[in-house]
Amino acid sequence: MALHPLDPITPDEVSVAATLLRSAFPTRTLEFRVIDINEPSKTAVLDYLAAEKNKTALPTVPRLVKSYFTHLGENVHFKAIVNLETRSIASMQQLPHGVQTPHNPILMAQLEDLCLQHPTIIKEIEKLKLPKGYTAICDPWIYGTDDPDEKRGLVQYYMYVQQNDHPETNHYSLPLKFSPVFDQATREFVRMDYLPSGLDEGFTETDVYKVYEAVEYHPELTGIATRPGLKPLIIQQPEGPSFTTKNNFVEWQGWTFRVGFNVREGLVLYNLTFKGHDLFYRVSLSEMTVPYGDPRRPFHRKQAFDLGDVGFGASANSLGLGCDCLGVVRYFDGVISDPQGNPIKRENVVCMHEQDDGILYKHLNYRNEMATIARQRVLILQTIATVANYEYIVEYILDQTGGIDIKVRATGILSTMPIDDDIVVPWGTIVGPGVVAAYHQHMLSFRLDTAIGGQKNTVMYQETVPLPRDERINPYTVGYISKPTYVERSGAFDQNPLANREFKIINENKINPTTKKPLAYKIYMPTAQMLLADEDSYNSKRAKFASHPYWVTKYRDDELYAAGEFTNQSQQDTGLGVWANGQDAVRNEDIVLWPTIGFTHNPRPEDFPVMPVEIHMIHIRPSGFFDRNPALDIPKPSQATSKSVLVKNDSGSSSCCKI
Amino acid sequence: MALHPLDPITPDEVSVAATLLRSAFPTRTLEFRVIDINEPSKTAVLDYLAAEKNKTALPTVPRLVKSYFTHLGENVHFKAIVNLETRSIASMQQLPHGVQTPHNPILMAQLEDLCLQHPTIIKEIEKLKLPKGYTAICDPWIYGTDDPDEKRGLVQYYMYVQQNDHPETNHYSLPLKFSPVFDQATREFVRMDYLPSGLDEGFTETDVYKVYEAVEYHPELTGIATRPGLKPLIIQQPEGPSFTTKNNFVEWQGWTFRVGFNVREGLVLYNLTFKGHDLFYRVSLSEMTVPYGDPRRPFHRKQAFDLGDVGFGASANSLGLGCDCLGVVRYFDGVISDPQGNPIKRENVVCMHEQDDGILYKHLNYRNEMATIARQRVLILQTIATVANYEYIVEYILDQTGGIDIKVRATGILSTMPIDDDIVVPWGTIVGPGVVAAYHQHMLSFRLDTAIGGQKNTVMYQETVPLPRDERINPYTVGYISKPTYVERSGAFDQNPLANREFKIINENKINPTTKKPLAYKIYMPTAQMLLADEDSYNSKRAKFASHPYWVTKYRDDELYAAGEFTNQSQQDTGLGVWANGQDAVRNEDIVLWPTIGFTHNPRPEDFPVMPVEIHMIHIRPSGFFDRNPALDIPKPSQATSKSVLVKNDSGSSSCCKI
Repeated sequence: MALHPLDPITPDEVSVAATLLRSAFPTRTLEFRVIDINEPSKTAVLDYLAAEKNKTALPTVPRLVKSYFTHLGENVHFKAIVNLETRSIASMQQLPHGVQTPHNPILMAQLEDLCLQHPTIIKEIEKLKLPKGYTAICDPWIYGTDDPDEKRGLVQYYMYVQQNDHPETNHYSLPLKFSPVFDQATREFVRMDYLPSGLDEGFTETDVYKVYEAVEYHPELTGIATRPGLKPLIIQQPEGPSFTTKNNFVEWQGWTFRVGFNVREGLVLYNLTFKGHDLFYRVSLSEMTVPYGDPRRPFHRKQAFDLGDVGFGASANSLGLGCDCLGVVRYFDGVISDPQGNPIKRENVVCMHEQDDGILYKHLNYRNEMATIARQRVLILQTIATVANYEYIVEYILDQTGGIDIKVRATGILSTMPIDDDIVVPWGTIVGPGVVAAYHQHMLSFRLDTAIGGQKNTVMYQETVPLPRDERINPYTVGYISKPTYVERSGAFDQNPLANREFKIINENKINPTTKKPLAYKIYMPTAQMLLADEDSYNSKRAKFASHPYWVTKYRDDELYAAGEFTNQSQQDTGLGVWANGQDAVRNEDIVLWPTIGFTHNPRPEDFPVMPVEIHMIHIRPSGFFDRNPALDIPKPSQATSKSVLVKNDSGSSSCCKI
Repeated sequence: MALHPLDPITPDEVSVAATLLRSAFPTRTLEFRVIDINEPSKTAVLDYLAAEKNKTALPTVPRLVKSYFTHLGENVHFKAIVNLETRSIASMQQLPHGVQTPHNPILMAQLEDLCLQHPTIIKEIEKLKLPKGYTAICDPWIYGTDDPDEKRGLVQYYMYVQQNDHPETNHYSLPLKFSPVFDQATREFVRMDYLPSGLDEGFTETDVYKVYEAVEYHPELTGIATRPGLKPLIIQQPEGPSFTTKNNFVEWQGWTFRVGFNVREGLVLYNLTFKGHDLFYRVSLSEMTVPYGDPRRPFHRKQAFDLGDVGFGASANSLGLGCDCLGVVRYFDGVISDPQGNPIKRENVVCMHEQDDGILYKHLNYRNEMATIARQRVLILQTIATVANYEYIVEYILDQTGGIDIKVRATGILSTMPIDDDIVVPWGTIVGPGVVAAYHQHMLSFRLDTAIGGQKNTVMYQETVPLPRDERINPYTVGYISKPTYVERSGAFDQNPLANREFKIINENKINPTTKKPLAYKIYMPTAQMLLADEDSYNSKRAKFASHPYWVTKYRDDELYAAGEFTNQSQQDTGLGVWANGQDAVRNEDIVLWPTIGFTHNPRPEDFPVMPVEIHMIHIRPSGFFDRNPALDIPKPSQATSKSVLVKNDSGSSSCCKI
């Protein structure tokens, strides 16, 4: 079956590309960091989509593969583009010395042994004189940045204790106080960092381990009785789901789109249309950075870029029916590669299902008590990434009015550090005996390649302001109006909630016949604190996108990642910090809007040992796009099809059907 | 069966109270505005609850009824308290001349005929020379305030056209340009207001009606084909719901609480506890005001107080199984009264059901791909009020971690005004031919009578601030900490999202053993614009609560309503504006926290003719209340009980079960 230009990479394509690249270096062993699709240019895809729509001959769009790789054992990094049609290497580039490509998470996991079996580390662990049944374990961490002269690709290992041999025992509850650094390329031990556990940078050399009891999360380890009373809840769709799919093409309730998946961004949605109207060419999570607020060495280097350093797709979970996803569920698979260049199929990395979301609209005529009511059905595409201790759940939620919600759930386990007894630090929360979770931020940049009614769009914002006191136009001083501002040049833009600043994407080439104003969608996120690190810190210089909530750029192929292409040990942002230059004209152009979700996470004890989801959302809604409510046409709810059940008073079990 | 002191009023109690009050005025006819329970003092209820808990003898708490009524035909208003135990009038008070009690919505609806059958109005309608099949109709509106000398209780009628005889034809789409004012007490015609329809206050006298086509919402009138493809979605709980109820007492997943309902506030939750811990004594919506931003006479007076002027319980919908509520549903009833003092039972004014809310927490061990996962079950109590054109849906959502979400969905039909062709006004959105929806705000004050770990609480807020640049304590300039502020005196408090200001309710008498800090809950709402009207306007003077997002007061019985007891044609706020006086000590006291949801609603054309829900939420979460995640004990999800269904590729209908 022919592939669509927007289809994800296939296992065969990974293998072909790896073979071609290996053959270019017959005397070397390659260590692959990434092998993934290289997306075709927008122009080529738009031509293809137009031909599909018009049922004319489909143009050929060559399948290209992008790979990052190194020479095994050396700090040399390459980027190559492979043309699968011609089976040739289209471009090959050795990256400047010191530029690090992303980690391959499969390699990272394999490198645990490197640390635990190294004589220096074994000796250090022996000094702990761990009680019987206790073992030391390590999590390899991205190294971060604090030295402009550091050219090696480094790994910082955080060390923990497991106090029993249950595979799910919570080692994050028992952090150790030393942290080795290795050179990933040469596999050499570089340095032992000792962790401060008091109020300042002071530390002590490794000594006999002080035993603390772990705070466990696995039901077999918590010693907590199961909470009684939860009865099964089953979601059924006896006639099947309301969506139809053809491979990665989906149709649902007036929506059409394609599901994409890649190593770096994970789930991507392409070419979203609703009721025949273009809305978005591409929607994706473009980057996330997680800087920590503990100022002490070596914690000052804790700043992950979960997409650029590792990859959200590379870290994607295989989702389970009835656990990760409930109801009538369609899955999509992904493909990543191992360090040797072998394809690894990741099954069920995206799930798609419908949900009832309460009342969509209602009006009751009080004269006769007749109600006109519609329930809201939504379509949810969900993906989950595990980045060592943390989990991130991203949901794209489409509704029946042409709206999209982006919902991020942060869960998993806090990154922890040792703390001495009777100490309280101002940059963290004690979450268990001897363990503190530092304050940190999760800054997520979503990328909205807009196509509101067409490819040429404008971003504008409206503020709501009181009319001035004026005897003639505002005698009772209750009047207020809205005040528009149009974004003319690429740049970053702030929130202003006290003025009700509302951001819109408009199409100035098409006028809404009802409002007599350009077609418009609005985008809303709650106002949040942006990056706290000083603007001169590496945390800040590497992640400019995290300093403002909205960014607007002119569209260019390959400008996909908010902090730039290479974030691993980067010293500066090469993404929005460069592209949003204040120069490019972005009014009525092909533009990209980049909202940054800011989430300052000062942990609660309730977030440990495993964290109830903290939810952050972006809401995207038509706002002057349609001439009226676009969901007047949805069928009205009925008890005949919903088969709801009436519960009688004083009863938890008996129930009877009202109809 | 004995009533609980927190139970709602019964039909019998309404009748007894009405009879007693009528007998006090043998020569007059009474017109009842409100007959409702008068809640017992907190002290009495706490004694009762303690006795219940300790299984000691239950103290007697007298049932009291509160009534507002008038003498039919006169502008005299009374407030009385009736003791049902002694069958006597405990207090009776004639209100100062000019103080208006709330409207009885049943009476308001009856008064439509007064307008439509009045000779002056008939004559005015005749001038329109409406085409055959067209009729005029009116919505009685609260009058508002602009004259300190106005002592009469007035009703402003907004007039519309129905263009066919379908009962659900959308008259709001066809507003007329005249608006009669009547004296409700004397039923006298007071004045004809003419509505401006251009750019200023200018208006024309009534002339031949210009025919516009209505924008309809009822499926039989829209002429729009039903959107295809939506398949039934059924929520089943074969073993019944997870809650148990005993009359109005509910237990669910560690929660206990009582469901209350009254004419003014509608749904109220009492004595919420989780896992044996006190959390809230009482949670309610206390007031909502809806001021409009059109500065022109008479629209400047459009400012509803939907609780104080009419009553959220009085306006509550009877909810329908499978339509308003889906799944396995328990209902609660309410009782209101008609103008003659007869009880009217409102069935199903509150629905309660469970819902799956996605993943609650997850951690995947990347070493072995073993996942620990919990799904989130929530319990939803929902109530819906229709206030003429608008609908408000209020949901209280309890979760398994001790968290509460308050979710408000605004829907229904925009309040509309006539507009001339080819005019665009800066304070409204054209939503159809000849019709504009003015900008307005919905300001909702919720009242949280807190009992976090006990009755004595403190409100505090924390801001997250960068550590200063300092070579010693913050050499890498990435550190940040939190900074607490404690609320010592009653008052109003603002948001500060750029400093991540986080409000908490803490109990300084109880220390969390993990964090070594007082037990705490946090409360979060997105930062929003507050009231836009000038501080010297009536809109502002009548609704101080709408000028700030958080208010803290010392608890006093009878301080229940944010804008004060009497809002109908009020000239000033007699609630928070008085109580939050900056004097009362509120640290470690019995306190009340009043969050104001602010929602500046500049209508979209998509909000017409019936508005997709606009959702606003308050999130309440333990944050240092428990020593760890309090939901480690919930059972893990399983496909065996969830019976989810796998959908195959390329298929919208066939489906197969994976297990």
